[in-house]
Amino acid sequence: MTIANAALASEMLDIVAPAYKAKKVLRTATGDQRNAALRAAAAAIRAHKKAILSANAADANTARQQKMAPAMVDRLLLDDDRIEAMAKGVEDVAALPDPVGRELARWTRPNGLDIARVATPIGVIAMIYESRPNVTADAGALCLKSGNAVVLRGGSDARFSNAAIHAAMVEGLRAARLPEASISFVRNTDRDAVGMLLRGFNGLIDLIIPRGGKSLVKRVQDESQVPVLAHLEGICHVYIHAKADPAKARAIAVNSKMRRTSVCGAAETLLIDRAVLVTTGKAVLADLAAAGCEIRGDDDVCAAFPAARKADYEDWRTEYLDAIIAVKTVDGIDDAIEHIDLLGSQHTESIVTEDRAAAEKFLADVDSAIVEWNASTQFADGAEFGMGAEIGIGTGRLHARGPVGVEQLTTFKYVVRGTGQIRP
Amino acid sequence: MTIANAALASEMLDIVAPAYKAKKVLRTATGDQRNAALRAAAAAIRAHKKAILSANAADANTARQQKMAPAMVDRLLLDDDRIEAMAKGVEDVAALPDPVGRELARWTRPNGLDIARVATPIGVIAMIYESRPNVTADAGALCLKSGNAVVLRGGSDARFSNAAIHAAMVEGLRAARLPEASISFVRNTDRDAVGMLLRGFNGLIDLIIPRGGKSLVKRVQDESQVPVLAHLEGICHVYIHAKADPAKARAIAVNSKMRRTSVCGAAETLLIDRAVLVTTGKAVLADLAAAGCEIRGDDDVCAAFPAARKADYEDWRTEYLDAIIAVKTVDGIDDAIEHIDLLGSQHTESIVTEDRAAAEKFLADVDSAIVEWNASTQFADGAEFGMGAEIGIGTGRLHARGPVGVEQLTTFKYVVRGTGQIRP
Repeated sequence: MTIANAALASEMLDIVAPAYKAKKVLRTATGDQRNAALRAAAAAIRAHKKAILSANAADANTARQQKMAPAMVDRLLLDDDRIEAMAKGVEDVAALPDPVGRELARWTRPNGLDIARVATPIGVIAMIYESRPNVTADAGALCLKSGNAVVLRGGSDARFSNAAIHAAMVEGLRAARLPEASISFVRNTDRDAVGMLLRGFNGLIDLIIPRGGKSLVKRVQDESQVPVLAHLEGICHVYIHAKADPAKARAIAVNSKMRRTSVCGAAETLLIDRAVLVTTGKAVLADLAAAGCEIRGDDDVCAAFPAARKADYEDWRTEYLDAIIAVKTVDGIDDAIEHIDLLGSQHTESIVTEDRAAAEKFLADVDSAIVEWNASTQFADGAEFGMGAEIGIGTGRLHARGPVGVEQLTTFKYVVRGTGQIRP
Repeated sequence: MTIANAALASEMLDIVAPAYKAKKVLRTATGDQRNAALRAAAAAIRAHKKAILSANAADANTARQQKMAPAMVDRLLLDDDRIEAMAKGVEDVAALPDPVGRELARWTRPNGLDIARVATPIGVIAMIYESRPNVTADAGALCLKSGNAVVLRGGSDARFSNAAIHAAMVEGLRAARLPEASISFVRNTDRDAVGMLLRGFNGLIDLIIPRGGKSLVKRVQDESQVPVLAHLEGICHVYIHAKADPAKARAIAVNSKMRRTSVCGAAETLLIDRAVLVTTGKAVLADLAAAGCEIRGDDDVCAAFPAARKADYEDWRTEYLDAIIAVKTVDGIDDAIEHIDLLGSQHTESIVTEDRAAAEKFLADVDSAIVEWNASTQFADGAEFGMGAEIGIGTGRLHARGPVGVEQLTTFKYVVRGTGQIRP
């Protein structure tokens, strides 16, 4: 280890160790106390609006000087409305039911032992994110609501904004007499700081959640020695079955792709049954093109819809996050399911059909975090699921898949109440 | 990679790739089909009893030639009763309710979307284990029951026994027309084969479950790039509170330690409130000593019970798995909880008390997979919890803690049924 790295490790441990201690206090803090901290944090965000805006202006200036793309600068920018939305978001999290202490199951054994499975906090969560400074408030609020301590590590682009928002969150913790380290913040933007978090400080960190571009998520998934909740990409499919209602197919395909092209639940590939390619399929493609979407199709699609350009193999496994869609002709539901299985990312897929049996087969056989029937893939979102808010979407197989809300940020333990039972 | 390793990698891929394909078939196989395979496997175990016993005799001979300790040879040995118990165990797993397809939650959104959280198989599980050949049947049965494909990698000590039992399991799969690779077996006992499984073959393996000694589990936890469900050790505590019923304290302490000393739920440390050290505490220590248990105590314990020898720091964090117990005097419940927090392994801890408020504090504040009130720690077992059988115990924080039964061997997906909803 270089001397610089030893200094960084020491600096990081000064952040992670207090977070670990805070987790022990949070384990027994009440829901009222955690909610009071969140409401006070929301008030502090509003009270410090000027300081947050001025920190944000500094970040935006740096970004413009570094010739950051205007769309990226926009993601970074805060204004009165965005700050109010951020404060309101923290209050909304406070208003959610307490996820800690929920009795998930309870039963009595023949020997009289009373066994309950009870939700408990996970512990210390490290959140590694980029760009949007509102994540500082959102992630801090969701982790605290679920009784976890969190170590926030935002991107260097938003360093001053993040620090100003973090200061408001800490003010909330202080008002509720909770440890300030419950929501900790890594100011150092050295890339090695992330590597240290990923090595977990010998068990002090229980979970890593990355949120940002594909390269960040991939680095976290590849390097982490701590469990990770994340999705690398959302290659979401809409499948127009032979028995699709044409109006639903058109509305769902256009909404799934074009409502917002930059979200992970946006459709990237459209599968169309050969039987309806020149009827419903063609109408759908015309709608998409009219909405400004570029169509990349296989030979049959290009023949049916000449404005389409030819897709190559990479198109079937590309998350465009843009107004582009790959369109493939399939020979029935088995072909559609096989394509999704081979080239999907196990995020969200939707079948459009009026045939209940086909729909149920698709819902049963497709192995993605979210499978849908006659609904837009853009519903892949914690708020749309009724979870209140999400810290992200998971496409791994363990613990939580799909939207990760406050309930998914808890684990559980077994509480066994006896009257002196011993095991024969 | 050496040429030998390239050959091994190719050999391993010939096992893992078919298991990956089998997982896709298992995803849509019915519970009846999986149960039929298990019942046929149980029948095959009985039918091939002679072959299994002769393979086991070969393993035992090798073990004796290599001067294996008699207790270890005993763990390896099969006889008529043990084979019948193994077959019966597989039938018992078949008789459990189907964990796949369970509706874990279901709700309707204001926009009419019907959202269900449904249990699904995890995928491909690699099971890495030592010694006892019955794990081949147990783990194969539990994974198949929960719709998973499994790659079994047993220890070299039981190589012939494991292969013979595996052949019977495959006969069951064949009878039910399920892919033989649903329960796959690694014959090669090269240590590098384990390393390859731990690297996950680029996502083909979804979960690793190690079962065996501490060095095996530690290697798996340290090296695995795939999620692991395991416990490294069970440093379980019994805490005798000042208001403990003396009879319950004596029965629970002796049962927790001495019923079977080799199980992970066996107590390793006894904490005694100073207020009852020379009363209830002394009686408990006399019972333990009379049952053949060595007592290692702090100064106060040694003063109260002169037959105790002095404990050193290592005793507070040692999993003896033997007739030895470390005994510490504590100054009340906070002191006890702090000791467990600092030196426990988050497995199973029990408080003995008649004071409900103290019990509930202990149950709430101790952060272990299983927390108990007035019950033996040796209840830390899937069958005792009513899960039917367990593949192991988890002390990690994510997905499953405590006994891992067939329900814990599933994950879930969201099934969303709409009528054409698009997102505003």
